Amino acid sequence: MIERLCVIGVGLIGGSLARALRAAAACREVVGAGRSVANLQTAVELGVIDRYETDLAQAVSGADMVVLCVPLGAMEGVFTAIKGRLAEQAVLTDAGSAKGSVIEAAQRVFGSVPDFFVPGHPIAGTEQSGVEASFPGLYQRRRVILTPLPNTLSSATERVRAMWEVTGAQVVNMDPVHHDEVLAATSHLPHLLAYSLVDTLSRLDENNEVFDYAAGGFRDFTRIASSDPVMWRDICLANADAILQMIEYFVDDLQALGEAIRRHDGEQLLAVFTAAKAARDCFIEKTTE
Amino acid sequence: MIERLCVIGVGLIGGSLARALRAAAACREVVGAGRSVANLQTAVELGVIDRYETDLAQAVSGADMVVLCVPLGAMEGVFTAIKGRLAEQAVLTDAGSAKGSVIEAAQRVFGSVPDFFVPGHPIAGTEQSGVEASFPGLYQRRRVILTPLPNTLSSATERVRAMWEVTGAQVVNMDPVHHDEVLAATSHLPHLLAYSLVDTLSRLDENNEVFDYAAGGFRDFTRIASSDPVMWRDICLANADAILQMIEYFVDDLQALGEAIRRHDGEQLLAVFTAAKAARDCFIEKTTE
Repeated sequence: MIERLCVIGVGLIGGSLARALRAAAACREVVGAGRSVANLQTAVELGVIDRYETDLAQAVSGADMVVLCVPLGAMEGVFTAIKGRLAEQAVLTDAGSAKGSVIEAAQRVFGSVPDFFVPGHPIAGTEQSGVEASFPGLYQRRRVILTPLPNTLSSATERVRAMWEVTGAQVVNMDPVHHDEVLAATSHLPHLLAYSLVDTLSRLDENNEVFDYAAGGFRDFTRIASSDPVMWRDICLANADAILQMIEYFVDDLQALGEAIRRHDGEQLLAVFTAAKAARDCFIEKTTE
Repeated sequence: MIERLCVIGVGLIGGSLARALRAAAACREVVGAGRSVANLQTAVELGVIDRYETDLAQAVSGADMVVLCVPLGAMEGVFTAIKGRLAEQAVLTDAGSAKGSVIEAAQRVFGSVPDFFVPGHPIAGTEQSGVEASFPGLYQRRRVILTPLPNTLSSATERVRAMWEVTGAQVVNMDPVHHDEVLAATSHLPHLLAYSLVDTLSRLDENNEVFDYAAGGFRDFTRIASSDPVMWRDICLANADAILQMIEYFVDDLQALGEAIRRHDGEQLLAVFTAAKAARDCFIEKTTE
């Protein structure tokens, strides 16, 4: 049981976490914090949080669980604002989509990464943003990756794990560097490709006539291009190295496909498409079990 | 009213056309043809076609509307098989995803493109294949592009237009070269990107552990990588020039994004993501009207 949960950044991710914990009666009180008072008021009206504070030091005061759900670029500022203001037994965790940059920010602010800080990342989301888009089932059967460091208190890790398990998530531990590589591949690169494709097409013709002839495949393919641009700017900056590496791999493979098209190598194209279809169909089977 | 519709290739596209026309009582008889007798028997059992012929010349005999719904690579063989066997007043059309290659194939087989042939392309589909996946509503509110040539009989174009309008589609005419460029941008490139991404990820680790950490965005983004590999091999070969051009544009834009990440240019990233989100949101609004 969490006595007082403090959610900093009450949007889709933080709001859904609070809703799931409240639905399971797994926390007694939820305090929200964030930049937008209007959003925090909405969160109170929707019953997502009990009350809010605009001062972050006030917000974390007395909370036994503090969860940072702000864009990656805002993490360091939040660490600075709450440094020395957490309760004695408080556990601190975050929901950032890259872990290396958050760990580095914590190191800069606290001198060394606090042993009560458990870096985390729930692999869930939609292209919607804001507390209005939050819902308690967001994390059901989703993965949450925790990347505790050697000095992280195992009791802190266990409390964060227990919190996420209440939401219906499957929690796994992972090395933060590996996390950032895996997410660059499965999430960050696809988002970049979707944004980049829509951008390329937009610039093909000024009237966007081209979109008139797009079908359902295009709609699904580009859904993630409707995601929050600020969040994705921050992710690109935070996980730059792993993303750049993935872009390089991807461009190499795409150009190899282009070469196969150029030399009319139907066998090669069929081999790649068949293998990709098999891998994708297998992924779908596994995730719909 | 179509007296006898002949559908060559009774899969998702051909099957859905037949179902839609039958549902609207817009044709008296449907004859199916194709390579797989098992599939044709299924089509009869499902009530998609009335009967089938395995010999293409027999199949088109006496039909007033003949629709080719075979992979692009099979078009030339079908033209050869039906040459000189069509009824006097028959109209011939196709549903191929590229138009230049089909027109060239017709030219090679018939000497010049017949004036009763109306090249066409319904922009609809799912990642499923086969007659079992066909359904009468597939074309509702979808676009069908016709690319008649200067010598095409306008009466033929009108009959094909009327047929597609019965299915609920919006029919537009377009220059075949422009069609192939537009489709390379909105359909062929996205499919290649999806196949290529899954391929890149598959080869990152042999155990496909990486897919365990993929979320809903990845699922949607790669849905089209579950499409029929033979169909897409043929499309890549048939529309090679336009696709290669699009790959070039896309790689340039993606690498520019990579450069922005490398120099930590958050402003540039935010500008591209914001513009892409706006274009995508606008596309969604238009298509859900």
